[in-house]
Amino acid sequence: MKRTLGTCYYPEHWPEEMWEADARRMAETGLTWIRIGEFAWSRLEPSPGELNFEWLDRAIETLGRAGLKVVLGTPTATPPRWMIDRHPDMLAVDAHGRPRKFGSRRHYCFSHEGYGRECDRIVRLFAERYGKNPHVGAWQTDNEYGCHKTILSYSDAAARAFRVWLQDRYGSIGALNRAWGNIFWSMDYASFEEIDPPNLTVAEPNPSHTLAFRRFSSDQVARFNKRQVDIIREYSDAPASHNYMGRFTDFDHFKVGDDLDIATWDSYPLGFLEDRVGADREHKRAFVRQGDPDFQAFHHDLYRAVGRGRWWVMEQQPGPVNWAPYNPAPLPGMMRLWAWEAYAHGAEAVCYFRWRQVPFAQEQMHAGMLRSDNADAPALLEARQVADELRDAPDVSAPQAPVALIFDYDADFAWTTQPHGKGLSYFQLIFDTYKALRKLGLSVDILRGETRDFGGYSIVSAPGLIYMPQDLKKALGQTQAHVVLGPRTAARNADMVIPVPLPPDMPGLEVTVSRVETLGLDMPMPLKGGGHFTGYREELEGAADVAVELEDGQPAVFRHEKLTYVGGWGDETALKRIYSEICALAGIETRELAGGVRCRDTDGLRIWTNYGAEPAETPAGRIEAAGVLLEKL
Amino acid sequence: MKRTLGTCYYPEHWPEEMWEADARRMAETGLTWIRIGEFAWSRLEPSPGELNFEWLDRAIETLGRAGLKVVLGTPTATPPRWMIDRHPDMLAVDAHGRPRKFGSRRHYCFSHEGYGRECDRIVRLFAERYGKNPHVGAWQTDNEYGCHKTILSYSDAAARAFRVWLQDRYGSIGALNRAWGNIFWSMDYASFEEIDPPNLTVAEPNPSHTLAFRRFSSDQVARFNKRQVDIIREYSDAPASHNYMGRFTDFDHFKVGDDLDIATWDSYPLGFLEDRVGADREHKRAFVRQGDPDFQAFHHDLYRAVGRGRWWVMEQQPGPVNWAPYNPAPLPGMMRLWAWEAYAHGAEAVCYFRWRQVPFAQEQMHAGMLRSDNADAPALLEARQVADELRDAPDVSAPQAPVALIFDYDADFAWTTQPHGKGLSYFQLIFDTYKALRKLGLSVDILRGETRDFGGYSIVSAPGLIYMPQDLKKALGQTQAHVVLGPRTAARNADMVIPVPLPPDMPGLEVTVSRVETLGLDMPMPLKGGGHFTGYREELEGAADVAVELEDGQPAVFRHEKLTYVGGWGDETALKRIYSEICALAGIETRELAGGVRCRDTDGLRIWTNYGAEPAETPAGRIEAAGVLLEKL
Amino acid sequence: MKRTLGTCYYPEHWPEEMWEADARRMAETGLTWIRIGEFAWSRLEPSPGELNFEWLDRAIETLGRAGLKVVLGTPTATPPRWMIDRHPDMLAVDAHGRPRKFGSRRHYCFSHEGYGRECDRIVRLFAERYGKNPHVGAWQTDNEYGCHKTILSYSDAAARAFRVWLQDRYGSIGALNRAWGNIFWSMDYASFEEIDPPNLTVAEPNPSHTLAFRRFSSDQVARFNKRQVDIIREYSDAPASHNYMGRFTDFDHFKVGDDLDIATWDSYPLGFLEDRVGADREHKRAFVRQGDPDFQAFHHDLYRAVGRGRWWVMEQQPGPVNWAPYNPAPLPGMMRLWAWEAYAHGAEAVCYFRWRQVPFAQEQMHAGMLRSDNADAPALLEARQVADELRDAPDVSAPQAPVALIFDYDADFAWTTQPHGKGLSYFQLIFDTYKALRKLGLSVDILRGETRDFGGYSIVSAPGLIYMPQDLKKALGQTQAHVVLGPRTAARNADMVIPVPLPPDMPGLEVTVSRVETLGLDMPMPLKGGGHFTGYREELEGAADVAVELEDGQPAVFRHEKLTYVGGWGDETALKRIYSEICALAGIETRELAGGVRCRDTDGLRIWTNYGAEPAETPAGRIEAAGVLLEKL
Ligand SMILES: [Zn+2]
Ligand SMILES: [Zn+2]
Ligand SMILES: [Zn+2]
Repeated sequence: MKRTLGTCYYPEHWPEEMWEADARRMAETGLTWIRIGEFAWSRLEPSPGELNFEWLDRAIETLGRAGLKVVLGTPTATPPRWMIDRHPDMLAVDAHGRPRKFGSRRHYCFSHEGYGRECDRIVRLFAERYGKNPHVGAWQTDNEYGCHKTILSYSDAAARAFRVWLQDRYGSIGALNRAWGNIFWSMDYASFEEIDPPNLTVAEPNPSHTLAFRRFSSDQVARFNKRQVDIIREYSDAPASHNYMGRFTDFDHFKVGDDLDIATWDSYPLGFLEDRVGADREHKRAFVRQGDPDFQAFHHDLYRAVGRGRWWVMEQQPGPVNWAPYNPAPLPGMMRLWAWEAYAHGAEAVCYFRWRQVPFAQEQMHAGMLRSDNADAPALLEARQVADELRDAPDVSAPQAPVALIFDYDADFAWTTQPHGKGLSYFQLIFDTYKALRKLGLSVDILRGETRDFGGYSIVSAPGLIYMPQDLKKALGQTQAHVVLGPRTAARNADMVIPVPLPPDMPGLEVTVSRVETLGLDMPMPLKGGGHFTGYREELEGAADVAVELEDGQPAVFRHEKLTYVGGWGDETALKRIYSEICALAGIETRELAGGVRCRDTDGLRIWTNYGAEPAETPAGRIEAAGVLLEKL
Repeated sequence: MKRTLGTCYYPEHWPEEMWEADARRMAETGLTWIRIGEFAWSRLEPSPGELNFEWLDRAIETLGRAGLKVVLGTPTATPPRWMIDRHPDMLAVDAHGRPRKFGSRRHYCFSHEGYGRECDRIVRLFAERYGKNPHVGAWQTDNEYGCHKTILSYSDAAARAFRVWLQDRYGSIGALNRAWGNIFWSMDYASFEEIDPPNLTVAEPNPSHTLAFRRFSSDQVARFNKRQVDIIREYSDAPASHNYMGRFTDFDHFKVGDDLDIATWDSYPLGFLEDRVGADREHKRAFVRQGDPDFQAFHHDLYRAVGRGRWWVMEQQPGPVNWAPYNPAPLPGMMRLWAWEAYAHGAEAVCYFRWRQVPFAQEQMHAGMLRSDNADAPALLEARQVADELRDAPDVSAPQAPVALIFDYDADFAWTTQPHGKGLSYFQLIFDTYKALRKLGLSVDILRGETRDFGGYSIVSAPGLIYMPQDLKKALGQTQAHVVLGPRTAARNADMVIPVPLPPDMPGLEVTVSRVETLGLDMPMPLKGGGHFTGYREELEGAADVAVELEDGQPAVFRHEKLTYVGGWGDETALKRIYSEICALAGIETRELAGGVRCRDTDGLRIWTNYGAEPAETPAGRIEAAGVLLEKL
Repeated sequence: MKRTLGTCYYPEHWPEEMWEADARRMAETGLTWIRIGEFAWSRLEPSPGELNFEWLDRAIETLGRAGLKVVLGTPTATPPRWMIDRHPDMLAVDAHGRPRKFGSRRHYCFSHEGYGRECDRIVRLFAERYGKNPHVGAWQTDNEYGCHKTILSYSDAAARAFRVWLQDRYGSIGALNRAWGNIFWSMDYASFEEIDPPNLTVAEPNPSHTLAFRRFSSDQVARFNKRQVDIIREYSDAPASHNYMGRFTDFDHFKVGDDLDIATWDSYPLGFLEDRVGADREHKRAFVRQGDPDFQAFHHDLYRAVGRGRWWVMEQQPGPVNWAPYNPAPLPGMMRLWAWEAYAHGAEAVCYFRWRQVPFAQEQMHAGMLRSDNADAPALLEARQVADELRDAPDVSAPQAPVALIFDYDADFAWTTQPHGKGLSYFQLIFDTYKALRKLGLSVDILRGETRDFGGYSIVSAPGLIYMPQDLKKALGQTQAHVVLGPRTAARNADMVIPVPLPPDMPGLEVTVSRVETLGLDMPMPLKGGGHFTGYREELEGAADVAVELEDGQPAVFRHEKLTYVGGWGDETALKRIYSEICALAGIETRELAGGVRCRDTDGLRIWTNYGAEPAETPAGRIEAAGVLLEKL
């Protein structure tokens, strides 16, 4: 499969007279994919039942005639205003108990059955009409599930659905009381009907309660998505996709992905650096016009796993955006670099968002490939360069990496429920680990928590996997790979209760976490030989070998044969050191990368990128600022 | 007209036996004006319809007999408790949807018609009774519109009035949908009835929606005020005024001022330094007992424009206040300095707030001219000194300045709606510019955005004027003055939509803003030759001459003949440098002032002030800490 | 009376088969007291009226048979879920107007009469059944009044009760209006029915209103508690107690204590250091595993006063807790040190919370004396060491100290109502003073504000006592002790109004506070001879001697004979200097203590503690890190 490019287009925003010239210019730029439709409900059904699809027919036909392929999005993220009159209680309710009003997007509760049926209806209209359209090459359900913190809703609809979900899971209220330990603080329930969502409680709610609500809320997304996919599949053979976002961890993307053919995501490196990478100001200053050197790569690897190998960038930042605390312009070359970073991780397509900057409404300050006045913007020129480069480039490829890192959304739910120390998050722990591996020059595969076959990997890392089922423990104990566990591995059972025997209770590794502590980030705990634990540390007992000690002589890392347990949150030095040693044991070559230089291997090609604002040297030669270097392997 | 002094007095707070002695002491201090009445509704009408005005008759008579003139305030900022029973829905509603309860002041929604009629009634009672009273020399409507963030109300009354306002402005819902770009995210409305205030939306609302609501909310204030003035004018020839505040930008003071004769404002230099000047801690430490050296001056110039030449300080800080985060005592001399700063800008009167410190309720820690125990407080002594100095001082004067700076509330609404970078505000941009001009020793006039005649000015500066009507562009293109535009000039149309051709689209100046970016304040962009752009920068294209370049070679300032466009937010060095150069081109002499020394010219007199805590040298000689120096011109 | 140890136990959390072994192990460890019952309502009354007390009978019997004594807690802090169905309006309402939902604990409003009667019923059931039980050695009412900010409730029940309370206090609405100064801003009320709790007002409410509501809310706690004690006393002779918390100042602990026999408190030195001591990061880093060296001592002295001499630690931190921002592990030895610190201040008993770490629900990460897997945790071993040491140690003792410090909850209500400067709090002022005294090596008694007999003290300190009744002024004027007043002493009358003559109006001391100012903490005001005033300063006039001057020559401290007035908030240097001088005048020996070393005198024994992480020298010899040293006197 050839690597491709694309864009997102909103024919309804522009006079119909412009469409044909737009389509021609897209094709001339070298684009293949055009996503349309996903916010157009109010123009397709201006009032309940009054359908007006002809303009969409013509738009698809115009694009198709230009040789472009359409990704058709279902419009369910933006129900029209009249929908609220039909279903006044469909609005999500925030944790403070306030309905989230009409006037932007995503103003619906995933649990509202009335709105669910409206979605069935509009999706069926789409699928019936375009299921066999030769220009529709793929589908997208809804848009960015979870954007604007929309997964957790405390509405009556959500409360009712939550009770049903609990009944399904626990069977009897006595079982739930026992599983959650509701005897504590006399929180016993006499029936499922008595259980509310866990908001506005006096003190924190029972973490078992919170975790259950997070799992329920995640399941509601998968259920909502599956309804759409099932309908689309009745009518169409084109692959179905959804566009995920960066660092959204409120629902299980793997579960949603199970019902889809392709995972896509929306990659905004500069916006994300400002608002979610979690870096300090120095790092932000260094990469303000380039984005964090690892954040995109991590998500590329994550969504390749979510898509079971098939994945795209559905929205690629094309210039300054409108929504971050600050909105800088990218360094020249970055729009090309980001695309190559995606291809390095196996992307089938990279679509820039959006075709032309729209001068009105919420995203008027969001750049496009074209300016509002229809002049070329820098993104168009860089996209054209990528298109030229792709012509002779190899096919899509993502060979198995030597190192696997488990990322489990359920673990993130549990850490979010109970971070135990201010600011601690599972995502950050995994991302810190990923960064360390990547700075060692390693290519990494992300695996979901349900993985049981680790064949082909030399190292499997599973830090922070707070609930670990027995069969996963068994699989990790039996794999030929080196396995890295801790901190907080297997620290809770399936219902957020501390297990006895104490964690990690890992067969083959005699280590017990006897006590856990958290500290401010300004109180790092030094390790003998370099590096620190910061924020989170476990006191370990056991008969395994001590591989690393704290300066005070307490054990920090235990190892027995191929099993390693890390009893704290390592800083960059500590993580690189621990994983270097394991790589050496596993016979994997590492190369330390400095500054903004990174690399990733595809079949026969090592793709180097330089996120730095200055040129740098690599083993394959000099690389420009914002540059890409392809090294034959 | 002689410059005068005054105070604010609450006879209802004190035993009637004290009134006569108070009046005598006021007169002896040299005061002319005594403002009364504005919070007294509950004593004038203790229950609905039960009127009790005799005490107010006597208070006015007592003051009048002592030779004092009364400014009579309408009491509508403090409706009595019984009013809430008559109009339970008159309370404003905050952005979270919570009614703002009784128990302090300003507990009303400007859009509530029932309360509007109650205000008509009480104002008519005032005007009928005192319209011809010889001791009532002026009127004040209400008190400090907007204090405690009371302009924006999300009540049902506001929602209803907003819909009417929208219908008036747009005529048809289709026109509104088109003007706002509601096709974006399917936000189309089918009728005006469907439109709510823009709060509690899931993501940010459409900026056109938010801006419209801000304009509506501002108009409601003007409408509320005009009702009172119209009634007063039926009965009285005395001038009508309102006391504005510092850095309140939620309503258009010029529009309110159009219906009044005199603008007054409440000047609290130390409180403002702490809570709204926006300075860093170093600056706050340097001026903690003096106030910012430019903040009062700016508002003096602003309100001179709002009052079309006639303006007062209605409340002058007399010592420590009660409401700032910290409440320091002024340096000895500051109460005199602040009065002279006001006269330097053309004030007709300076009234200290309040006569005597009241020992009870919310403002018990607010100093007065007298202490609670009736002893002289420092403000009384400094006021007496000013009174002595005024006896032989020239009349009120405010000659036209060489430099004009446009301040447009509507532009502030738009910037607040869409700052695009965290912490960016139009007010701050204008104030930074004002500060730079003042540090160059220049006297400045503030002009409203509706100005079209710039006759007599050598320089007209209009940074950040985000919407610029065609006739203003034309007027600025044709004036003989040097005109300074940018950043963000003419960047939106009247409905908050980016215009095409792209901004600024200024006749006579071939410059186009091709892209905009914002950055953290810790990422300043250096200019060749000194200074930086900080926070906000535009990429400029065009055929005009590049007057200043960024260090990286990109154009920063363009100029063609008398038109200059500044493509970023200059720091103090940059602004002083850019304006020094334009002053040189315009033949205006500048003198750089350091530390806390400032000056301003009146007819025949340059008035020097020293906000510093140490003596300083000026071209006119040495000036003491907290000192005033009058230099004959 | 011998000093004793104990723990808190939840038999309902564990299989009944474990109880006997637990009881035996408790006894073997040397424990005396076992607190049980306080969260068990849902198992004692699973549905309304369905009583199930047999398990509790057996639990008490099992403990008793092992020689242990039970502290029986009433379960009213955790009403079961069915209670909410019976009394839907019993939930407290937060300041934003939101009911605080079921799902944790303390979900009740103190003013709800329906819930009050339910409490009467369950307490009577407890008292009837166990009032004469030989194993029940003491009672505890409810649990940690005020935890999770539960004193102030804005419910309808609270509003109704508040009106009754106001009517009782003021008699007529006219008296209330006059006392509060409601004429200010037309806030007059026509009847008590018109008065709401002071939340959600537009600007701050009248401070008299806020203070009244705080006093009312405090009284509701005392009233709630007294109902329980009165019932218990009908049936039992065992002493009644309540477990207070650290730095809870929303209700008057002395008033609650008046109805109890013993005061107990819950001491979490590491959690408190992180979340409420108010120290800077450097101090937190130095004491992260030890806790603040003075915070526990202060509360020990406070609760000794609240208990009129009889007091315990009911919950002693046993390791990391679950609820602080960060949750570190104590240095080895600290669990012993904390116990000895308590005995040094006269504790009768120290009970570790909890016996065994519970693996489920909110406190699953809270350490116990045993781990979840039943292994010994460090706290058990240190408790056993203390038990051994107690065997030959002297009896409980707390001889009168030479220095008394008045702590008055009502003053804290007033400061909280009106701090006048950001971050200023009465508690902090008292605690800073306490810290300075303790760093001078002094033992201190805390006295309540109602104290009138100061016999036996050499120094009585009463800073910040904002309302001071005439008879207290008189008592302080007549005592033989040196008396230290100011800042803010007697600055308000009983209704939060500034008195005239101005404060402090202290017989025997000609000092008047003519003006007050507050400043940021980064603007300290230097004193001649060392130290600073920070944050808060008063301008003083008077005929007394100036004992300390500010660098600018203004008076800072006045003294006349044995009366000293301090006109500002001294930093550590200033406070130590001022009190050293007074100690010298009073003939009290001081010894300056550095780092983490502290001492306190009991009968015949000076008990030294070292909160430092390194060994230190004392006059009595070397003391280890986390060490305790007993010096014979
Ligand atoms: Zn076709
Ligand atoms: Zn008269
Ligand atoms: Zn027995």
